[in-house]
Amino acid sequence: MTQHIRIGLFGTGRIGQVHAMSVAAIDDAELAWVCDPFVEGAERTAAEYGGKVSSDPAEVFASGEVDAVIVAAPTATHVDLIDAAIDAGVPVLCEKPIDLDLDRVDRLRAKAAAATIPIVLGFNRRFDRHFTELQRRVESGEIGTLEQILITSRDPGEPPAAYLASSGGIFRDMTIHDLDMARFFVPDIVEVTARGANTFSATARELGDFDSAVVTLRGANDELIAITNSRHASYGYDQRFEVFGSEGLLQVGNQTDTLVRRWSGDAVESLEPYQNFFLQRYAEAYRLEVVEFLKAVRGEPSRSPGFEDGRAALVLADAADRSARTGESVAVDLSR
Amino acid sequence: MTQHIRIGLFGTGRIGQVHAMSVAAIDDAELAWVCDPFVEGAERTAAEYGGKVSSDPAEVFASGEVDAVIVAAPTATHVDLIDAAIDAGVPVLCEKPIDLDLDRVDRLRAKAAAATIPIVLGFNRRFDRHFTELQRRVESGEIGTLEQILITSRDPGEPPAAYLASSGGIFRDMTIHDLDMARFFVPDIVEVTARGANTFSATARELGDFDSAVVTLRGANDELIAITNSRHASYGYDQRFEVFGSEGLLQVGNQTDTLVRRWSGDAVESLEPYQNFFLQRYAEAYRLEVVEFLKAVRGEPSRSPGFEDGRAALVLADAADRSARTGESVAVDLSR
Amino acid sequence: MTQHIRIGLFGTGRIGQVHAMSVAAIDDAELAWVCDPFVEGAERTAAEYGGKVSSDPAEVFASGEVDAVIVAAPTATHVDLIDAAIDAGVPVLCEKPIDLDLDRVDRLRAKAAAATIPIVLGFNRRFDRHFTELQRRVESGEIGTLEQILITSRDPGEPPAAYLASSGGIFRDMTIHDLDMARFFVPDIVEVTARGANTFSATARELGDFDSAVVTLRGANDELIAITNSRHASYGYDQRFEVFGSEGLLQVGNQTDTLVRRWSGDAVESLEPYQNFFLQRYAEAYRLEVVEFLKAVRGEPSRSPGFEDGRAALVLADAADRSARTGESVAVDLSR
Amino acid sequence: MTQHIRIGLFGTGRIGQVHAMSVAAIDDAELAWVCDPFVEGAERTAAEYGGKVSSDPAEVFASGEVDAVIVAAPTATHVDLIDAAIDAGVPVLCEKPIDLDLDRVDRLRAKAAAATIPIVLGFNRRFDRHFTELQRRVESGEIGTLEQILITSRDPGEPPAAYLASSGGIFRDMTIHDLDMARFFVPDIVEVTARGANTFSATARELGDFDSAVVTLRGANDELIAITNSRHASYGYDQRFEVFGSEGLLQVGNQTDTLVRRWSGDAVESLEPYQNFFLQRYAEAYRLEVVEFLKAVRGEPSRSPGFEDGRAALVLADAADRSARTGESVAVDLSR
Repeated sequence: MTQHIRIGLFGTGRIGQVHAMSVAAIDDAELAWVCDPFVEGAERTAAEYGGKVSSDPAEVFASGEVDAVIVAAPTATHVDLIDAAIDAGVPVLCEKPIDLDLDRVDRLRAKAAAATIPIVLGFNRRFDRHFTELQRRVESGEIGTLEQILITSRDPGEPPAAYLASSGGIFRDMTIHDLDMARFFVPDIVEVTARGANTFSATARELGDFDSAVVTLRGANDELIAITNSRHASYGYDQRFEVFGSEGLLQVGNQTDTLVRRWSGDAVESLEPYQNFFLQRYAEAYRLEVVEFLKAVRGEPSRSPGFEDGRAALVLADAADRSARTGESVAVDLSR
Repeated sequence: MTQHIRIGLFGTGRIGQVHAMSVAAIDDAELAWVCDPFVEGAERTAAEYGGKVSSDPAEVFASGEVDAVIVAAPTATHVDLIDAAIDAGVPVLCEKPIDLDLDRVDRLRAKAAAATIPIVLGFNRRFDRHFTELQRRVESGEIGTLEQILITSRDPGEPPAAYLASSGGIFRDMTIHDLDMARFFVPDIVEVTARGANTFSATARELGDFDSAVVTLRGANDELIAITNSRHASYGYDQRFEVFGSEGLLQVGNQTDTLVRRWSGDAVESLEPYQNFFLQRYAEAYRLEVVEFLKAVRGEPSRSPGFEDGRAALVLADAADRSARTGESVAVDLSR
Repeated sequence: MTQHIRIGLFGTGRIGQVHAMSVAAIDDAELAWVCDPFVEGAERTAAEYGGKVSSDPAEVFASGEVDAVIVAAPTATHVDLIDAAIDAGVPVLCEKPIDLDLDRVDRLRAKAAAATIPIVLGFNRRFDRHFTELQRRVESGEIGTLEQILITSRDPGEPPAAYLASSGGIFRDMTIHDLDMARFFVPDIVEVTARGANTFSATARELGDFDSAVVTLRGANDELIAITNSRHASYGYDQRFEVFGSEGLLQVGNQTDTLVRRWSGDAVESLEPYQNFFLQRYAEAYRLEVVEFLKAVRGEPSRSPGFEDGRAALVLADAADRSARTGESVAVDLSR
Repeated sequence: MTQHIRIGLFGTGRIGQVHAMSVAAIDDAELAWVCDPFVEGAERTAAEYGGKVSSDPAEVFASGEVDAVIVAAPTATHVDLIDAAIDAGVPVLCEKPIDLDLDRVDRLRAKAAAATIPIVLGFNRRFDRHFTELQRRVESGEIGTLEQILITSRDPGEPPAAYLASSGGIFRDMTIHDLDMARFFVPDIVEVTARGANTFSATARELGDFDSAVVTLRGANDELIAITNSRHASYGYDQRFEVFGSEGLLQVGNQTDTLVRRWSGDAVESLEPYQNFFLQRYAEAYRLEVVEFLKAVRGEPSRSPGFEDGRAALVLADAADRSARTGESVAVDLSR
């Protein structure tokens, strides 16, 4: 019989809600504790999806009533919560990034490596049905040797200034997803080259941040990966992925809510603009992310990325930031 | 608070399973009774999705433990089960068709019209997200006056000979879905013209049935609707819908499992073949069909088609069959 | 060395101009005579593309200075001009239709059959690159046995009332192209079923004509062919062709002037409306039509359709008209 | 009346043939001299398209019988032939690149700037109908402020080793087209960053060249342009262009010979592989390139790129090469 898993959830913001809903929808799992210093948020979430309420993580771990925890609290708390989970011997799914400061991540690194519990990072896109199938087909050799990847990733609109200010910059906040996706196909990245630009956002400019970026990665087998980012896109959330190999090309385009195409006097064969944001576009992926985490918790084979994947994405984001600021390519060694 | 609804399910074949799963997944509804003369089937379904088991519909109705029933039993039982549901005052969702014999349907017609309970027909495609959106947009006037509809509907492969023999023929078994979909956009059909052909199936030919058909409907406002059917399609389940109006055209194409497109030395921009059959293609629609039925049961506004819609589809299928055999257009009056 | 061919052109309207331009652009051919009762038109054409001018066809034939003639004069003159060309022993390319009256066509039929000169009909679509390739691939067996054809053919806008009044009706004027294209793939049509409708045009209604039509043809091997026509389309000239076989499906969609696709806040992946009319869409086909005719003139193998093809299209159009008016399928025997 | 232009052609290789054919097809222009040290090539070309034959450029210029010259000879001769054309006062269309050595180009620069004759560079893609329309629409402001460009350019197969050895490397030989196209949209490029890779070609590796590259350009208004190149593509010649602006996105995809799409049991919606090489894909563009040059010769407004455009492309290619080898972004000032 399948083990019933009691989940402790830290953080009840946007992503916390998504995870609470996922847990509630899964048989053999339940929301046991909901924890947020903003207690009202925790109470509201618990009222809808179940669980006891706390404002203190220590209380949750001490309760002995959680078999696994999900960390959807602010980034600054991630390292401490993973650390506490290791101490408590409780498997943890933590939202990306582990931290914005690589030093803080590295201080936890050895302990994480030695931990016997699953430490899973919330790179949701790895669970998207389309990208998963793309990866499976590339892996199967369908297009021969992987030579190039093109990732286009544009957000529908710029986040609020307050968010931007604490985001760590476009590379650590936005590109980091694409960096992880690049590693989903080419795990061993050895070089990062990046250019950032300021095209429309006064806020980004004032913060010393970019609103537009192109990042070129090199894999250990001389694969080249070009990532294009923008903080806005008038036509909706733009998430495209293209893998070019010696024997062919595979592409994942954007998803629309429906298959309805329109012909009019102005334009033909048109679709409605794309799903507007990541919670829609990756709704199923968020659910599968939790499903795969629960497999890891049960000791079953799981596709979940781990601590080292979370660290690698941050190493690459840091390198991109440095390259964008110095105009020099940055060599990286993810194994060190 | 939402009323909790206890469901009685008749029939535990392919569609019965689908409905059992849908009911099990809905909050505030449960499978209370599962009924099938093939008791083992009922037992297996009940074991998985809950409910008491019976081989006798009368026992189910007499139990007083069902607030609504779903009829997924063989076509020949539909009329009697709807009749029994009316007598028991229990709302009923019945799979299409009501019967293959219009006379039997008509004998129940007045009683059904007088019934105070919801009698809902299982035309699942009306609940498909893409077609629903298409209909909403046509209704909204986006393409002006509706003038023409093109429906292409091809099954991936011919059903077994035994199924074909009792299917009532291509028009009553296969085209009937398209006839109902035509009425989803143009309820008042006044004329049916049909041609059938034998292109590949020795079985269909021996049965005096067709494996290929083109049906032309005329609406009350001189809309022309062309339906093309085939009992096979080498490339998967082909379900396309196109509505042409004075101001534009809207189209729903086929759905694929993933967005992955392929470029190779043989072919470019290709997708994997379509989802192979109706249970996949219309999985979500089957679920929504039950959801809408439950709304009707609760007395809430519901988009569910009713007894008259089920009868109309059969009238049109009969007319298509007659037209195909006589070479003459057949006038119909669905209101009579 | 290639024979130099002197062309006599009858008619200097829209199509006459197109042919004059084609002849002028071909090496080893020249416009020798331009003939139109409206002499100014002939003079203007001759000034631009060369040739002597006449208002009298007899003068052209008597000159002994034409090796071939192209008939782009009004339909009512076609039979007489073909007749005269036969008498003069001069190969003729005649625009469709041969005549609107089948009796007149049939009175010339035996003589045409006995003629030793090429008599070629101007069904330009047979020379369209896309349809030619489609036909070649179907012929090669790529999709197995041909079972169904879907033709969608919608004009961008209704012609002037005066044109409509003398057009012979939608089937003889517009559908006739699609009927010939059906025969390009399935030469032996045995049955015609048609429905016409009045959706928007008061003019068509007053003339007893239709502005919308669906025609179903049956081939000798039980192929079903569905043609959908409308006299208007808000999004441009709509010319689609789909051939369904036991092993696959081939489709030709619409052509746009450029490959530019647009993504905006209103619509994504959209193209500009289609090329607006047949002179644009079939510009290359008109040129190739003349090229193939010249091959026939030189006695080389030619893909040009002949007198019997022109007659067959009219027989089918007549049958469609009759079927649309009687509601009965009409059997045809094109070989008789 | 339009001036009749006598053309002198230098070089009768692949591109020379294309230009000879273009000239022959244009009214009011003729091939007057054909010059190639390989006299047989010149004779063959002259036999087909007209003109006197010479193996010595000086003879052509001295003849006084050319109103303009087209240089399609090997790259090493370009500078001298342009120089000679200036001295002779004869307008010149020269194939790209001007030279592989920027110093040689710069030694001619002042003289070229002072020349009163048109000096036109053969960047054929600027005349491609699709890219021209794309540029017009971007220019018109349809997508607001231009922020990003993505160019994907992959050749169907690697050129012979001998060609590679004298090509100047991937950036000067292949990317140079994309660099010019970038400047077609963003003339003022200020920074070049490039990464090259060796994925499949032993020849390229031995030559110290790359077979795969990603180049990032920055425009004066902080536009970012990402170019992806590969020396091979199993699915044909891949030429895509995407312009992203504040108000939308415009894209030009690949062109296929026909509109035929295929549905089979293996793949659906597939097209035949793309046109296999630049002579097919850009056939019309090569013709228009000559047409525009002739406009310039006649003193009419012309869209032809000039000497400075040819130099700019080389400056950018040099910078890309340097960046790829040093790992550093290279600032450029095209105005200096």
